[in-house]
Amino acid sequence: MAHKWNIFAILLCALAVNGQTSAKTSGPRNLIFMISDGFGVASEALARSYTQQTTGYPSNWGSVLDNILVGLTRTRSNDTLVTDSAAGATAFSCAQKSFNGGIGISADGRPCGTVLEAAKRKGYVTGLVTTARISHATPAAFAAHAADRNMEDLIAQQMLGIGLNSSANGRGSVDLMFGGGQCYFLPKSNKAGCRSDNANLWQAAQSQGFTALNNRQQFDSLAFNASLPVLALFAPSHMAYEIDRNPAEQPSLSEMTAKALSLLRSASVNVPADHPGFMVMIEGARIDMAGHDNDPATHLHDILEYWKTINVVRNFISLNPSTLLVSTSDHETGGLTLGVEPEYAWYPSVLKPVQRSAEVICKELHRMTDRAQLDRHIAEVVMPQYLGIPDGSAAEVSTVSEAIQSGFKACKRAVGHVISARARIGWTTSGHTGADVGLYAYGSGSEAMRGSMDNTQVGGFLASYLGVDLDSVTRELANLSTFQKDFEKKRRHKHEHS
Amino acid sequence: MAHKWNIFAILLCALAVNGQTSAKTSGPRNLIFMISDGFGVASEALARSYTQQTTGYPSNWGSVLDNILVGLTRTRSNDTLVTDSAAGATAFSCAQKSFNGGIGISADGRPCGTVLEAAKRKGYVTGLVTTARISHATPAAFAAHAADRNMEDLIAQQMLGIGLNSSANGRGSVDLMFGGGQCYFLPKSNKAGCRSDNANLWQAAQSQGFTALNNRQQFDSLAFNASLPVLALFAPSHMAYEIDRNPAEQPSLSEMTAKALSLLRSASVNVPADHPGFMVMIEGARIDMAGHDNDPATHLHDILEYWKTINVVRNFISLNPSTLLVSTSDHETGGLTLGVEPEYAWYPSVLKPVQRSAEVICKELHRMTDRAQLDRHIAEVVMPQYLGIPDGSAAEVSTVSEAIQSGFKACKRAVGHVISARARIGWTTSGHTGADVGLYAYGSGSEAMRGSMDNTQVGGFLASYLGVDLDSVTRELANLSTFQKDFEKKRRHKHEHS
Repeated sequence: MAHKWNIFAILLCALAVNGQTSAKTSGPRNLIFMISDGFGVASEALARSYTQQTTGYPSNWGSVLDNILVGLTRTRSNDTLVTDSAAGATAFSCAQKSFNGGIGISADGRPCGTVLEAAKRKGYVTGLVTTARISHATPAAFAAHAADRNMEDLIAQQMLGIGLNSSANGRGSVDLMFGGGQCYFLPKSNKAGCRSDNANLWQAAQSQGFTALNNRQQFDSLAFNASLPVLALFAPSHMAYEIDRNPAEQPSLSEMTAKALSLLRSASVNVPADHPGFMVMIEGARIDMAGHDNDPATHLHDILEYWKTINVVRNFISLNPSTLLVSTSDHETGGLTLGVEPEYAWYPSVLKPVQRSAEVICKELHRMTDRAQLDRHIAEVVMPQYLGIPDGSAAEVSTVSEAIQSGFKACKRAVGHVISARARIGWTTSGHTGADVGLYAYGSGSEAMRGSMDNTQVGGFLASYLGVDLDSVTRELANLSTFQKDFEKKRRHKHEHS
Repeated sequence: MAHKWNIFAILLCALAVNGQTSAKTSGPRNLIFMISDGFGVASEALARSYTQQTTGYPSNWGSVLDNILVGLTRTRSNDTLVTDSAAGATAFSCAQKSFNGGIGISADGRPCGTVLEAAKRKGYVTGLVTTARISHATPAAFAAHAADRNMEDLIAQQMLGIGLNSSANGRGSVDLMFGGGQCYFLPKSNKAGCRSDNANLWQAAQSQGFTALNNRQQFDSLAFNASLPVLALFAPSHMAYEIDRNPAEQPSLSEMTAKALSLLRSASVNVPADHPGFMVMIEGARIDMAGHDNDPATHLHDILEYWKTINVVRNFISLNPSTLLVSTSDHETGGLTLGVEPEYAWYPSVLKPVQRSAEVICKELHRMTDRAQLDRHIAEVVMPQYLGIPDGSAAEVSTVSEAIQSGFKACKRAVGHVISARARIGWTTSGHTGADVGLYAYGSGSEAMRGSMDNTQVGGFLASYLGVDLDSVTRELANLSTFQKDFEKKRRHKHEHS
């Protein structure tokens, strides 16, 4: 009898030990996968030190992201040591490496089943939230399959299931889409459209049953338990940078996230009763774009908004504990570093008075044709009012004024470099770099994530958390009709386009 | 009876659960604390991709360090967002933030007890291993207390206990010292000395009972169970970079480590029988110096040697499981990034044929006074033979040739930049930067390390693992006589010296 009890207690014990290190293995579960696009290790230090300095927090204070760090993600793609966002997102979505530019396809050019598609087929409710165009590389790689990220006409169609020959249902795999990018859903004939054909995807979505929203008022009116599917696109192209955002016009990433989580939860809990949960990818997309522009204050404000979004997610998890948050980045952008010789210092306070992104400033400057007027505007408005630099030098004014003659992109970097030089912030490139990026996890199953993970291993972890089979979706997609042709075309023109 | 068994099994179970997440709490234990000085997140990616590419490992291969990553260390010092190695090492040794330049002292200038000193007082055997001068900032911060890292006359004395008024024993707190830096142990009168006084610390060490070695042959002859204390200094100043090292003259970091671990283990196990174990700090010091020179191949080879050292330590731990390895960095150096526009790529293969450090090359060039001879030597010897660039351009030759006119430091960076430009590697500074650095742990107690840690928290963890009390050593050092005067002097001259 004693022996019998002992065995029983040891079995209980094994259960307890196991419970400490592995996730709940049955019942509904939710996956919130967040991507801070182009957010390097230095980006986090930038935002942390800025917050320490502007709030008076102590020197050992850590952010909401620091507090859930579990390791680093390795980022290289199949064909190069510096990935782009398409191959980076495909590594997460398909758990395999692709070539740069490839959207939801293998290194050999075949469509690969994504974690979102596989989740949909298993009954999960699915969503994509981004501040970029919804058809941009990162969200695209979860629901589309294209030889090149620039095939956004095709990608937007596929995100509604059109042309995918999908057996999943009548409308593709995504139940909720929040972001920018109206123009790829509108026909060429429409003034606001940017498609090369006359397909009207906005109407197509509505025919499929989507509630389609295109402004803040409609977003605010949407009930927190409204039915899915919902397509909400708030801008013709990307949404505004957080530093420029007009809250009357566009919701923030954290606001979109709060509503998305509520809708996804509501749909997965109520209709029908046997849903296994939900899976959503949420992207802080423009952290990357500010990195491309070497624009530190804009980079910072999109990061602070990402932190706010992490807080929204953590609050959601406190009420819905069967939820895993994983947050990481596809790559670093800009080669951001903090501190330039000769001093061992950098100055976050320089970023505080900056009011506008380099992008918005340079759009304004680009419209001025008279050089004297341009110089005066930079000296009297841009430097003191937009950048908070009352003592701007003639050299700084002329740097920006010269750059705008070389074009919009040069102007943006020149503005970014004026701020960066004063803050002692360094940049090495307007592109991406090959260093590892932070890996963060919280909630159900997060204990199993620890250490250095290849980006494909992160993807594999997501699939295994949801208990989904990517290969079966890959087999389903094997005959995707228009795909190989496009891939061959892409191969032929690869060097021209890269 | 059944009930009794049940309780017993549950107690066993609690023990088992507990054993999974916390360290052994009694019996001898060893701490191997490793510092890869100036080793950023991009440095690890550099060495990993180089190894993947030169060995044909797959694209998801991880290094011996990747495999034990547990988080990131935050690096700022008390007075600035970009630490130097003195404040960085003091955060680890005293578990508190100091100002840049401060060696084993608090932000207010008072000496603080270090984990090595506290370990010594509790009976642990102690050691310091470095490829820099043993009196250089990082090892110094574990066994000395000085207002400025440049006070190396004083620091070398303190490392032998001289002037510390220490009650620990007749000879200071360190039982084993391996590294470079003979010259601060030799009197001014000695041709090889660099002290400003005539103290002969070499003799002093021998009088204290140290076995004092200064060359490879003596090192090789030293038995693996020789008695401590041992002082082995292999170079007048820093030891050679790994890429330049003559194995007949100097041991490598991994060789010094293998012997140090054997000696420390032997001393802690055998004499006397009640020693609690050992504590050693091992520094890959020159990873940082190659970063200062923006010299990527030299940086790489010191990292590969550091990896080799990690392997030595892991093998030691497999035989001595009551040992914790913690490895991290004090800061990033150089603002290294991988990939420069317009391509999304960088090229490790460029580093493979490089034969010498920029330091050795520029020492050679510095001796040449004739400009034509200099240019010819760069074109015919330096480019093809030392850098493995058979097709060096006139512009590359002239970059190096011009730089040497501006001095030794400019020459080193110019050589580094010739290699970096071809490899598409970026650098932003010849100093340090403020980003987080990798945190690695393995062995007994390593499960408790996970996530983002402030550098002072890493120090606190080391002290708590050893069960030592830093405050009692701080109290013991409170009356350190010569200290305040030096600190005041340092304060007065701070801006001149920084």
